Amino acid sequence: MTRIVGSSGADLFNEAVIRDLSDTEARRALVHKWGQVPEDVLPAWVAEMDYALAPAVADAVAEAVAAGMTGYPSFEPGGGALGRAYAGFAARHFGWRVDPTQVLPTVDVTAGVRLAIDVLSGPGAVVLPLPAYAPQLGLPEVCGRERWDLPVEPDAERVTIDLDRLDRMFADGASTLLLTQPHNPCGQVYTRAELEGVRDVVTRHGGRVVSDEIHAPLVLPGAEHVPYLSLEGAGEHAVAVVAASKTFNTAGLRCAQVVVDDPATAARLAGVPIARNDSWSPLGEVAAVAAYEQGDAWLAALLERLDGQRTLLGALLAEHLPRARMRPLEATYLAWLDLRAYGHDDPAAIALERGRVRVAPGHDYHPGLAGHVRLNIATSPERLREIVRRLATALG
Amino acid sequence: MTRIVGSSGADLFNEAVIRDLSDTEARRALVHKWGQVPEDVLPAWVAEMDYALAPAVADAVAEAVAAGMTGYPSFEPGGGALGRAYAGFAARHFGWRVDPTQVLPTVDVTAGVRLAIDVLSGPGAVVLPLPAYAPQLGLPEVCGRERWDLPVEPDAERVTIDLDRLDRMFADGASTLLLTQPHNPCGQVYTRAELEGVRDVVTRHGGRVVSDEIHAPLVLPGAEHVPYLSLEGAGEHAVAVVAASKTFNTAGLRCAQVVVDDPATAARLAGVPIARNDSWSPLGEVAAVAAYEQGDAWLAALLERLDGQRTLLGALLAEHLPRARMRPLEATYLAWLDLRAYGHDDPAAIALERGRVRVAPGHDYHPGLAGHVRLNIATSPERLREIVRRLATALG
Repeated sequence: MTRIVGSSGADLFNEAVIRDLSDTEARRALVHKWGQVPEDVLPAWVAEMDYALAPAVADAVAEAVAAGMTGYPSFEPGGGALGRAYAGFAARHFGWRVDPTQVLPTVDVTAGVRLAIDVLSGPGAVVLPLPAYAPQLGLPEVCGRERWDLPVEPDAERVTIDLDRLDRMFADGASTLLLTQPHNPCGQVYTRAELEGVRDVVTRHGGRVVSDEIHAPLVLPGAEHVPYLSLEGAGEHAVAVVAASKTFNTAGLRCAQVVVDDPATAARLAGVPIARNDSWSPLGEVAAVAAYEQGDAWLAALLERLDGQRTLLGALLAEHLPRARMRPLEATYLAWLDLRAYGHDDPAAIALERGRVRVAPGHDYHPGLAGHVRLNIATSPERLREIVRRLATALG
Repeated sequence: MTRIVGSSGADLFNEAVIRDLSDTEARRALVHKWGQVPEDVLPAWVAEMDYALAPAVADAVAEAVAAGMTGYPSFEPGGGALGRAYAGFAARHFGWRVDPTQVLPTVDVTAGVRLAIDVLSGPGAVVLPLPAYAPQLGLPEVCGRERWDLPVEPDAERVTIDLDRLDRMFADGASTLLLTQPHNPCGQVYTRAELEGVRDVVTRHGGRVVSDEIHAPLVLPGAEHVPYLSLEGAGEHAVAVVAASKTFNTAGLRCAQVVVDDPATAARLAGVPIARNDSWSPLGEVAAVAAYEQGDAWLAALLERLDGQRTLLGALLAEHLPRARMRPLEATYLAWLDLRAYGHDDPAAIALERGRVRVAPGHDYHPGLAGHVRLNIATSPERLREIVRRLATALG
């Protein structure tokens, strides 16, 4: 695991060091995750990391602010610096060849998914595998479409997409599959074969895929991310929505990217009325370019840290919550815990009340599913120990 | 006019000094206005000001960035610090009593208008007085509604809303009037009587008003802003969308506010799926709070500067472009020039090509209207002289 250093000293300027925020720093920096809980509650809910920013990203944003870069973004046509930076990152990390001119900024990933559905999809239902990233549950309604759920059996060994059911849904008129891969909240990576199976079903029906790949850089040692658009033929029916923000803790800076694989689709998305897509921030763009171009060493250190945290989580669960079930965490810093054996419908509520630890309730991701929580491990080993200890005390 | 100081010296820290950006500084800070034109072109198009940020705003944002405040905004219920700050500002500047709990953040004004129409308006057409802020032209389509234009006669002495035509439009099924007041691009303030006339028509038909008041703090000496929601009965059918961003040059920081006047409407807007409204930035929120709470002295200096610039513009037009027509500029730093007497359909194109000055073409604001431009005077007196000189050379 990466060495942790204090809040002073030369290591702060080492790109390859993950620095833990103190509680005080975290409360000031993470106004949602830490700011929205009472001081005696340990937050392990929303997907933000208790780490200082990558120095290259922090420096780039601070310089931009010092220069007064608070106005409109450049709206540079054809991908610009952001497109080139993302294309370089995708090539290095995923062996995926992206045309920089087909990288379109958007304010955040959810807005990018909305844009893609609004502009590219037919009026049919949006298929949503469950559990899903909570804001996605309301997204089809916002897009004026029905949501058709494709739930994963809680006892299944892997989170997979039931291709027969998917096939029937498209046959029945669904227009779009909203794929989140790596999976959030389950932290699982789909295999190439699984994704090819999805592609074949969608292709057969002339459907569309929107692939939310915000967690792609957070694939942990032992697994590999396969960009959906890298599959042969996928570019004809899919867009990916990506961002540096989840990996580099900059969700509030507001810049994600829609990536497409054919010029006609890029032109359709770029040609929408400006009111449909003009809300990203130049600071988000600056942060993303810095992250994609200069963030590799920090990202490597982060993955090493998260790899250590997942090992630690396994040990802590075995010791304190032996009846918790969890599939192998292959990506993300979000652990999906099946706590049904402890007999609480809403273990997150019990944990908050009795244990003063805030985890995310499973039913936010899978309505009607009892006994699950999503736990955020992107913190210090010390805090993770305390989080699991409190969870065990509360549920035991 | 306010004294202009150089790029060094103690005056930089004086809240009440408007500091001009050098060309080099402006190119770095304003990546759209300055960055998207060749170096030999003087930019006077998009609505950004060539001034350094208000020190209180710059400091607040720099401190937030230094603290790593790059994550999700707080989503604090009930208006929070932002609501309190805006309510204080509205009381001081407009004598308008706003309930802080009925101030809802949104990423930018256009997104706030979209939200209000999507959530609150019936399916009927959106009435848009023309000329209008260019992105609003595409907004009804984005909201899935027809756009019904209500053009102002170019020769009219005042920009007014034709109440008989408005009445017929609502009678014919329009659902919403999109009001921009103070007016952009015409820089005019509607009188209380004019606004009451609008209110009476809308009330009679059970229609709705969305009042874009982003330019309200930029009302120049001699005029007064009447918040639409301050009219008796308006709260039952209207929302206002406001922001500190236009006045304080922070459009890229991404936080505007929807203000409503009854709890039920506030609850409807706050209760939408998160995917419909969650994209504002904590830095935008920090900037807005600083601007509203600590920006009065800087704003006073700004208005003094802009007052001087409009006087200068009048003199420059009289000298160099005597056939230009312009209604009195009562608000904003955007002058709407009728240049039809010079015989060019698209004077902005001629100005760019022959004069190397970029102004905004009138047809972007009023499709089909020839011979007009919008000119941005929020720069130094020296630059404004050069802008008008170049414009005159190009058109003459």
